Amino acid sequence: MSNILTPDIRAVLERQAIEVPSWAYGNSGTRFKVYSTPGTPRDPFEKIADAAQVHRVTGLAPAVALHIPWDQVDDFAALGAFAAEQGVSLGTVNSNTFQDDDYKFGALTHEDAAIRRKAIDHHLACIDVMDEIGSRDLKIWLAEGSNYPGQADMRGRQDRLHDSLEQIYARLSGEQRLVLEYKFFEPSFYHTDVPDWGTSYAQVAALGERAMVCLDTGHHAPGTNIEFIVMQLLRLGKLGSFDFNSRFYADDDLIVGAADPFQLFRILFEALRGGGLEADSPVAFMLDQCHNVEDKIPGQIRSVLNVQEMTARALLVDRAALSAAQQSGDVLAANAVFMDAFYTDVRPALAEWRESRGLPGDPMAAYAASGYFERISAERVGGTQASWGA
Amino acid sequence: MSNILTPDIRAVLERQAIEVPSWAYGNSGTRFKVYSTPGTPRDPFEKIADAAQVHRVTGLAPAVALHIPWDQVDDFAALGAFAAEQGVSLGTVNSNTFQDDDYKFGALTHEDAAIRRKAIDHHLACIDVMDEIGSRDLKIWLAEGSNYPGQADMRGRQDRLHDSLEQIYARLSGEQRLVLEYKFFEPSFYHTDVPDWGTSYAQVAALGERAMVCLDTGHHAPGTNIEFIVMQLLRLGKLGSFDFNSRFYADDDLIVGAADPFQLFRILFEALRGGGLEADSPVAFMLDQCHNVEDKIPGQIRSVLNVQEMTARALLVDRAALSAAQQSGDVLAANAVFMDAFYTDVRPALAEWRESRGLPGDPMAAYAASGYFERISAERVGGTQASWGA
Amino acid sequence: MSNILTPDIRAVLERQAIEVPSWAYGNSGTRFKVYSTPGTPRDPFEKIADAAQVHRVTGLAPAVALHIPWDQVDDFAALGAFAAEQGVSLGTVNSNTFQDDDYKFGALTHEDAAIRRKAIDHHLACIDVMDEIGSRDLKIWLAEGSNYPGQADMRGRQDRLHDSLEQIYARLSGEQRLVLEYKFFEPSFYHTDVPDWGTSYAQVAALGERAMVCLDTGHHAPGTNIEFIVMQLLRLGKLGSFDFNSRFYADDDLIVGAADPFQLFRILFEALRGGGLEADSPVAFMLDQCHNVEDKIPGQIRSVLNVQEMTARALLVDRAALSAAQQSGDVLAANAVFMDAFYTDVRPALAEWRESRGLPGDPMAAYAASGYFERISAERVGGTQASWGA
Amino acid sequence: MSNILTPDIRAVLERQAIEVPSWAYGNSGTRFKVYSTPGTPRDPFEKIADAAQVHRVTGLAPAVALHIPWDQVDDFAALGAFAAEQGVSLGTVNSNTFQDDDYKFGALTHEDAAIRRKAIDHHLACIDVMDEIGSRDLKIWLAEGSNYPGQADMRGRQDRLHDSLEQIYARLSGEQRLVLEYKFFEPSFYHTDVPDWGTSYAQVAALGERAMVCLDTGHHAPGTNIEFIVMQLLRLGKLGSFDFNSRFYADDDLIVGAADPFQLFRILFEALRGGGLEADSPVAFMLDQCHNVEDKIPGQIRSVLNVQEMTARALLVDRAALSAAQQSGDVLAANAVFMDAFYTDVRPALAEWRESRGLPGDPMAAYAASGYFERISAERVGGTQASWGA
Repeated sequence: MSNILTPDIRAVLERQAIEVPSWAYGNSGTRFKVYSTPGTPRDPFEKIADAAQVHRVTGLAPAVALHIPWDQVDDFAALGAFAAEQGVSLGTVNSNTFQDDDYKFGALTHEDAAIRRKAIDHHLACIDVMDEIGSRDLKIWLAEGSNYPGQADMRGRQDRLHDSLEQIYARLSGEQRLVLEYKFFEPSFYHTDVPDWGTSYAQVAALGERAMVCLDTGHHAPGTNIEFIVMQLLRLGKLGSFDFNSRFYADDDLIVGAADPFQLFRILFEALRGGGLEADSPVAFMLDQCHNVEDKIPGQIRSVLNVQEMTARALLVDRAALSAAQQSGDVLAANAVFMDAFYTDVRPALAEWRESRGLPGDPMAAYAASGYFERISAERVGGTQASWGA
Repeated sequence: MSNILTPDIRAVLERQAIEVPSWAYGNSGTRFKVYSTPGTPRDPFEKIADAAQVHRVTGLAPAVALHIPWDQVDDFAALGAFAAEQGVSLGTVNSNTFQDDDYKFGALTHEDAAIRRKAIDHHLACIDVMDEIGSRDLKIWLAEGSNYPGQADMRGRQDRLHDSLEQIYARLSGEQRLVLEYKFFEPSFYHTDVPDWGTSYAQVAALGERAMVCLDTGHHAPGTNIEFIVMQLLRLGKLGSFDFNSRFYADDDLIVGAADPFQLFRILFEALRGGGLEADSPVAFMLDQCHNVEDKIPGQIRSVLNVQEMTARALLVDRAALSAAQQSGDVLAANAVFMDAFYTDVRPALAEWRESRGLPGDPMAAYAASGYFERISAERVGGTQASWGA
Repeated sequence: MSNILTPDIRAVLERQAIEVPSWAYGNSGTRFKVYSTPGTPRDPFEKIADAAQVHRVTGLAPAVALHIPWDQVDDFAALGAFAAEQGVSLGTVNSNTFQDDDYKFGALTHEDAAIRRKAIDHHLACIDVMDEIGSRDLKIWLAEGSNYPGQADMRGRQDRLHDSLEQIYARLSGEQRLVLEYKFFEPSFYHTDVPDWGTSYAQVAALGERAMVCLDTGHHAPGTNIEFIVMQLLRLGKLGSFDFNSRFYADDDLIVGAADPFQLFRILFEALRGGGLEADSPVAFMLDQCHNVEDKIPGQIRSVLNVQEMTARALLVDRAALSAAQQSGDVLAANAVFMDAFYTDVRPALAEWRESRGLPGDPMAAYAASGYFERISAERVGGTQASWGA
Repeated sequence: MSNILTPDIRAVLERQAIEVPSWAYGNSGTRFKVYSTPGTPRDPFEKIADAAQVHRVTGLAPAVALHIPWDQVDDFAALGAFAAEQGVSLGTVNSNTFQDDDYKFGALTHEDAAIRRKAIDHHLACIDVMDEIGSRDLKIWLAEGSNYPGQADMRGRQDRLHDSLEQIYARLSGEQRLVLEYKFFEPSFYHTDVPDWGTSYAQVAALGERAMVCLDTGHHAPGTNIEFIVMQLLRLGKLGSFDFNSRFYADDDLIVGAADPFQLFRILFEALRGGGLEADSPVAFMLDQCHNVEDKIPGQIRSVLNVQEMTARALLVDRAALSAAQQSGDVLAANAVFMDAFYTDVRPALAEWRESRGLPGDPMAAYAASGYFERISAERVGGTQASWGA
């Protein structure tokens, strides 16, 4: 059975790393209600400790993305040292310009130069953090836009966005990158300043080589062929990172692969086809999810396993046979080659391979058996549980 | 100019009443941020006072819908008396089963009979309030559903929903009605227990004559022809009420008519065509909106005016000419009759008519000139501003 | 391996039958182009012969649905006898009121009583065919609607539809049924007279017990939870049949399971959960697809196999474990039980089981090896290839 | 009343020109049925004659777009001369690579170099026509894509598309331009080779300055903010042309402004805001519609009038007041300025202005009174009516 994972396939799987977001371990929810759960972290150290559990049982999640100011600490060196102790590192730094009253009508795009300055400075401060913890990527998601036609000068905002990004980009050094996320809608409901990959691409192309696009799998219009965008951005050399999650309707932020596993397969196949899984690929793989009703740490374990399993399936596609069928115009044969890989049950072979590497064959069971949840539930009493507000 | 408002049209406009929601005067927002504003009410009395301003300048909003527990007070008689002093009355009572930890996995549909009992009892308590304040309608919006395939037994939940509704319905008396709202998605992202008009219709039809459907204009799948549903529910005798708002994407809760004014025109025309604007119509017209970034009281004034203006346009449709064009298969002529009414500028005639009734011709300006906002901003200092949590 | 197919599962699979549409064997396409292919049938007999190939290699497709007038023949008894010779039977009769100039503005809903009469009579003629060939179901898909707001009196059309259906329903006898399909849009682009399950349900409920709803999997708004509708219609006792196909965007009519295999799994699970796979179930399973660019007979073979494979996966769900997880509110455990079945590779076990029943383990390969396609390509020269027009 | 049309506004309206498509005068429909009508043109000359009627009564449609091969004639000089006699000119040339059996799996993207060559040569032949008739724009809409995951190598196709376009672009001379249309889906249902503005932009940016994007208002995902794309393409200097029409669901090809008049207003406002209505603007305004159920010539007259009326409304926006409200963050005031223009009834002033220019005040009535339709219905007997196939 495990023969299906050839050495070439194993080589890719071995280097696969999926960054987990610190905020996945805090409470999250909808505008209607945020449910709290026992054991939820009260500070960034506890979030890191939780994230480390995911890596411990999967070997897949060696880095943790931070969100500033949610993960602001006095001593980032101490946080980095703590992470290292736990067996993980600090990764991408995410800025936040959507929770300050000043940003009600925009941040990097605001009509008022003083507010724009404040937002730019926040990003410069994020780069300071990156310098301190040795982070490569500054990820920018802009919650900016408007709710009513006429409310905003969309064109002027686009120009101001360019100016702001240029100042931020100029502050990067070495291998540091700026990664610009796009989002179809929410929290704005009429227009969003970076609503689609085309806008993100046009903006980062105007900055320079180390500015890239972040593709969040939940941020598209209904029916969008996301793997096409993956293909196109890789072709244009501008796919900087993935924010993985899944959706049925809007930005549902469900566990990656939960809503449409076949779509995840297609996305990973295009990532592979375009060189995104190569050792020198510029593509960062990250999760960006909310665990509103399910347990958080197991939710993250399930997520990285979903990506791993689907990557294995994508790697199983017989590309020579696929190419031959494509060239001969044999639609059913080409589709059959593709589906054969998708329908192959890779789970037993992956379990065996995990064990061969000293990892638990069943990471979900291993975590459940570890007693970690019982321990944090007992220990983390009092204090304020982390959520999007802190 | 004002001749376009014939006596027949004026008769309809004169009896038009649009209920406003108490929660529109509190703060609201998205899962990312709720912005607060000066002058926001701290309790139900202050909400009523604000709502009364809308009626004062428009003559259109004589009733205020309550939300329990957000508007829970010790003495509802006192609240009702205060409303009467302010020139308005208390209207529909809205229940809430989405903000208690017990309801994480359902309320009226929960697997656990004890939780179901608690949710049913909450509705019975709401009916007690209705009895006390003389309210006709109990409006039920169910936030219930699931986020992941397999998480819930959808069929079992549907049966339990029927049982729960039956117990609630049995408690109604006199002219009281149960109005069941449907919603496509959110806060649940895989399945919603009452996702469409068909489900709401099937559930209320199984209860009895005083159970009706509530149509919230923002709760449909992309592309849905909402006026068709208005037509169908009126035809089936089951349109109990409208929750007006507008949307570009999801349940955006924007000002009614803001996103697609022509759609509002078509909806009001079907309401008119189906008898929904008759004096004895069972249809209640309500707003259900969030003013996330715009001023709240003016936002409500703008909303009721939008409904009034669009009702006037719907009333202007030359129905004899329309019918003749329809019967002759003259597509362009029929559409032209329809569009002619939509493109007619009814605003000057409405302003003149308002003044003839002792109301301000320009209610927005009248409110702005009233000094009310300045007064509440100065007076309402301290305390906790109302929002969805309270 | 084959042990995964328990005797209980095999019992369901053994009685599974999926009706194939005669029109799938003719040419089809888009408004832009219909591509023709060698070997395409020129008459209903050749269509039946092709359909029989699907059953020959799969044992899954014992009946062929007819479409009148596309399959009109002088001697239906002869067509039935030919089908029997080929090892299949004639099944559902589909009416057509969308290709006659008289129906430009409606058929069963038309303002003109004479055109309505003509459309009703067409359906009565279809029932005559049913009587002759022993068909149980009259399937009605209405292409009626309008393209422009104001063009049509939607309410009046709904009432006329009821009257027309009542006359058709009255003509049914014995076990015969009327099955009413709904469709979100196309060929009409503003309103469709039966756009959603709610309308179909309301219409058939007003007729009687032998009037049922047909659910075409491609006929919904973006994001619609189709399995919820399956559940609801089974609960209401009104799910008469499935028209299977798949879609990414609109009514794409792709091979069932091709666009979203996980959705097909969920649909079949709800069909199973609601009793739709029981021996006495009223639910008919049919395909309704277009093979625009792929080979037609193999396209149909692939389709029935997709339904069979996904049915096997749905049957593999450990329902006791699922129920336990649901009742305990363990979201991840419930989802895991569900996904475990979906990710199980049932193909080897099904191949073995097929062979045990005297069928080819690999029906696609068996058909390819049969030489049938080469034979019809050589023989069917001249004449007019069948398509939607004939 | 007519004072609302200031001299500045009139200056813009006077130079407004909307190109009409020759194919709008032929029969069109859906995959289910194409209805024919009396008087439908049988050849390109008759199409030109019909198009000239639109210009005669509106003064708005001085050019007619051709479609090759549908409008192929032996003597284009004669066609041009005929057009000149009729008072119009020949405009944009549209290529067609979607109705030849060779193009079943692609044209400019095909795996087979010979088919690609054929498709490129077709475009070179179109440029020959442009040279002959003095046309500026070659418009390319690609119907290419695939129906099933795995069917096509999307990345390879994108590269081949670039190569093909480069060869076509190289053949342009003088002021000639290549305009590349994008489309979300149809006739392909899994992937489309140019599905979004980002892809069209990336492709034309790689060609050179005279390669531009064509924005068809019906070719977007549900919910897309189209005016944002207008803004962005104007900002990037790459908006070459509009294909106007309107939609409720897919590419419905309804009369522009019919489905969502407010959207057309927003689009025209952004076109204006971005300089697209200036005298030297590179933006061509065209219709691309189907008149499936309505009369064709009046359908075109209605369409150009809709664009004119909405342009007048967009010009009425008080931009100084809008800008002031935007800068002060007064959401409701900004929206009110915007809506005030939209709700102004510009029709009487436009009628008066038309008459002042020697045009009929009511072009629809003038055409109806002209007897043209009765004449062509009587004269055009026999022959084959034009449709998309010819």
